[in-house]
Amino acid sequence: MNIKMLVYILGKVLLIEGALMFLPISCGLIYCEKEVLYYLILAAVYIILGFLISMKKPKNMTIFIKDGCVATALSWLVLSICGCIPFILTKEIPSFTDAMFETASGFTTTGASILNNVEALSHTSLLWRSLTHWIGGMGVLVFILAVVPMTGGSNMNLMKAESPGPTVGKIVPKVRTTAKMLYYIYMAITAIEIIILFVCGMPLFDSICSAFGTAGTGGFGIKNDSFTSYAPHIQWIVAIFMLLFGANFNFYYYLTTRQGGKAMKMSETKAYIAVAAVATGIVCFSIYGIYGNLGDSLRHSLFQVATTMTTTGFATTDFDLWPTLAKFVLVSLMFIGACASSTGGGIKISRFQIMFKAIKRELQSYIHPKTVKKIHIDGKTVDTDVERSVALYFFIYLLVFVLSMLVVSFEGHDLVTVFTSVAATLNNIGPGLAMVGPTHNYSFLSDLSKWVLIFDMIAGRLELIPVLVFLNPFTYKGIIKKSPKS
Amino acid sequence: MNIKMLVYILGKVLLIEGALMFLPISCGLIYCEKEVLYYLILAAVYIILGFLISMKKPKNMTIFIKDGCVATALSWLVLSICGCIPFILTKEIPSFTDAMFETASGFTTTGASILNNVEALSHTSLLWRSLTHWIGGMGVLVFILAVVPMTGGSNMNLMKAESPGPTVGKIVPKVRTTAKMLYYIYMAITAIEIIILFVCGMPLFDSICSAFGTAGTGGFGIKNDSFTSYAPHIQWIVAIFMLLFGANFNFYYYLTTRQGGKAMKMSETKAYIAVAAVATGIVCFSIYGIYGNLGDSLRHSLFQVATTMTTTGFATTDFDLWPTLAKFVLVSLMFIGACASSTGGGIKISRFQIMFKAIKRELQSYIHPKTVKKIHIDGKTVDTDVERSVALYFFIYLLVFVLSMLVVSFEGHDLVTVFTSVAATLNNIGPGLAMVGPTHNYSFLSDLSKWVLIFDMIAGRLELIPVLVFLNPFTYKGIIKKSPKS
Repeated sequence: MNIKMLVYILGKVLLIEGALMFLPISCGLIYCEKEVLYYLILAAVYIILGFLISMKKPKNMTIFIKDGCVATALSWLVLSICGCIPFILTKEIPSFTDAMFETASGFTTTGASILNNVEALSHTSLLWRSLTHWIGGMGVLVFILAVVPMTGGSNMNLMKAESPGPTVGKIVPKVRTTAKMLYYIYMAITAIEIIILFVCGMPLFDSICSAFGTAGTGGFGIKNDSFTSYAPHIQWIVAIFMLLFGANFNFYYYLTTRQGGKAMKMSETKAYIAVAAVATGIVCFSIYGIYGNLGDSLRHSLFQVATTMTTTGFATTDFDLWPTLAKFVLVSLMFIGACASSTGGGIKISRFQIMFKAIKRELQSYIHPKTVKKIHIDGKTVDTDVERSVALYFFIYLLVFVLSMLVVSFEGHDLVTVFTSVAATLNNIGPGLAMVGPTHNYSFLSDLSKWVLIFDMIAGRLELIPVLVFLNPFTYKGIIKKSPKS
Repeated sequence: MNIKMLVYILGKVLLIEGALMFLPISCGLIYCEKEVLYYLILAAVYIILGFLISMKKPKNMTIFIKDGCVATALSWLVLSICGCIPFILTKEIPSFTDAMFETASGFTTTGASILNNVEALSHTSLLWRSLTHWIGGMGVLVFILAVVPMTGGSNMNLMKAESPGPTVGKIVPKVRTTAKMLYYIYMAITAIEIIILFVCGMPLFDSICSAFGTAGTGGFGIKNDSFTSYAPHIQWIVAIFMLLFGANFNFYYYLTTRQGGKAMKMSETKAYIAVAAVATGIVCFSIYGIYGNLGDSLRHSLFQVATTMTTTGFATTDFDLWPTLAKFVLVSLMFIGACASSTGGGIKISRFQIMFKAIKRELQSYIHPKTVKKIHIDGKTVDTDVERSVALYFFIYLLVFVLSMLVVSFEGHDLVTVFTSVAATLNNIGPGLAMVGPTHNYSFLSDLSKWVLIFDMIAGRLELIPVLVFLNPFTYKGIIKKSPKS
């Protein structure tokens, strides 16, 4: 294992985290909040420490796939731990477990909160909290890849470990250019959302925080009732932007580089739109009786479908009071999730596409046993390795899900609470149903359950494998010298 | 497709179903019940019809895998439809949907009932109802294979389609001998259970019905409170026999043929015992507070773990009132299910074994990317085709599950009811939680939901693929001549 390179990457992560803190710091200075002081000190410490650690560039910058997994998992751990300290110092979230839960929830773009009163937070902390979503959405390692020149050619392994989806498509041959492209698109759409929200009458601070929450498909609101009290036209705008951020970013790359033909052919985008439309239709049908008019029903159903499918987690209404049919559709969307190479979570549309094609081929093999066919998506052959990984992914996912439920169910809350708390964190959504529904939060859970859900959030964001490789003792075989046998 | 052979098999199925009706008929004659008349007429009709249809043995007895799937799915449909007619004629279950639900539930060894008052049924119908479990447990086609000499060598495809588990192991080279062996073991253990129950003080009629329900891991009780009012020692006996019938039958074959070494090495049996023991431990810990003493807690937990894991579905207590932890463990067991080549349902231990090994190998491939390893179970290599099928099985299973839930949730019952009604039928268990809990039944559901659950029961018993192949229009391509294009 390339330990020098690992340390170098962690140094860069610290450096960037410190630097990013200057955004909430400037905001706190404008509002003259005393909390700014802690952020200033921490930012200085992180920057100096990060600079010292990553000062010396290692000669060997090769990263194998297992190094990539370990680096990614460690980076996200460091990011969350260092990111939660301001909340503890300002005493806004005094408990370490709670602060860690909130910050991990932020970086992993989950949006599950332990705060009973969000509005009591300082502007500095509110902005930092929303900023974590934005950083976590596209990924901090992807950011490092975009700004730090890395040689060695194997930096693809870092990107693979952090980016969502079964196959990481380099949209251009160079990883660094790809990472830059992704961040340019990301920043551009975020900026557009901020402007539109501001023009449509939202205060600037609210616009920035909401746009960060939407862009990272995070879901932290800055109001206790999330989006319920914002005007309907604001809700429509946010719903549409959530769906935009849940789409595969290659789509935007193709559009901006005038490859409209390629963009229109992307089957994942088509499937994504189809699922969203059908789900909105069913939910709208199911809740029509509650709201009595098509406009409101459609707005609430589109918003909740968008927020669940893109795994954002905002809410315009208490959907826990909706009929079972609507709730079931939402719970199903939690698992389907957004597109690969988006900022959204969940299992991802493209994994389902691959599995559907595999089933079709399997059934055909019963009819014509001797034909062996490869699976194709958008004209490209899906490698059998990828196919196997995707199939296994579902099983690993199930396993993590069931084990998490087992631990959380020791607390004795009802099955729907236990089930949706795991579903909402592993899929990086935020609110679930029943006791973790949109009008509640996660503060009532025991510390043990909170740590399980913190694990689920990080495992879900990094799509399981990097975390499992990180936790597998065999990964470190040969690094820790065997003690001589007595 | 070999249609002549299909018709021949269906004829045999009818013939056997008619013949088997003579067991409830003799019982009805002893109790002098008027319902016997209907059974007599139907048995005669089925036997004559079956004899006429299967009189002429087709020259070409070759069965391809798709023919095997279609034959199996059709047989189970015919079995259920013909098996439900007595209930309609005797007016004990006048509605066709309800009678079909009860009979499909019987043959598929589910044990989910629509009867509010089981005890109102005649002895004839009670025995027929329990007998359907026994027939469905080992499978009617396996029975046909055991008694009808079939040439052509491809009768393995029939056995594959009907027998549970990812790989159908022929314990001896000849399919017919294997089928016979399985039935001998099945009959022997059933007989032992009847004798033990009778000796321990259960009335003979109750002993026979209970043994049929246990052997097929079915779960139809003949009392309204299932096993609650039977003495504790009866409950212990039934619990142990349920576990015996949930084990891989190859285990018994090895034992009876003095291959104890092979029997002891079966990793599936070991895993099965381990899961049952751990689950019983957790449930016992969880419910200890309710019963206050170890004996009762252990008895109830072992019984409920055995009944759920083997997918039988008897009950000694209303476990819907148990704490969430215990309920969660039981719901998990619903999915794990019993062993391959047993009479139990669920996903099966061996599928999980294969997936666990596949995950282990996948994680290793991240550490040593260039080593490609095959998976081994009990010293035998698992074919990559089998591995792929198992992985896909989980996905297809999930899909059928979610789509079933979608339809059932239109009715507006709570999520736990909807979830466990699908889980309890697709895994062939019987009772679920909440409104389909052990003290309730399925009668309140709409006809649409009942038909979805009937589908789930049959699809679950035949392990999905045969039913999907049967429903796939491509299976019949070439049989139905294309209409000339205008």
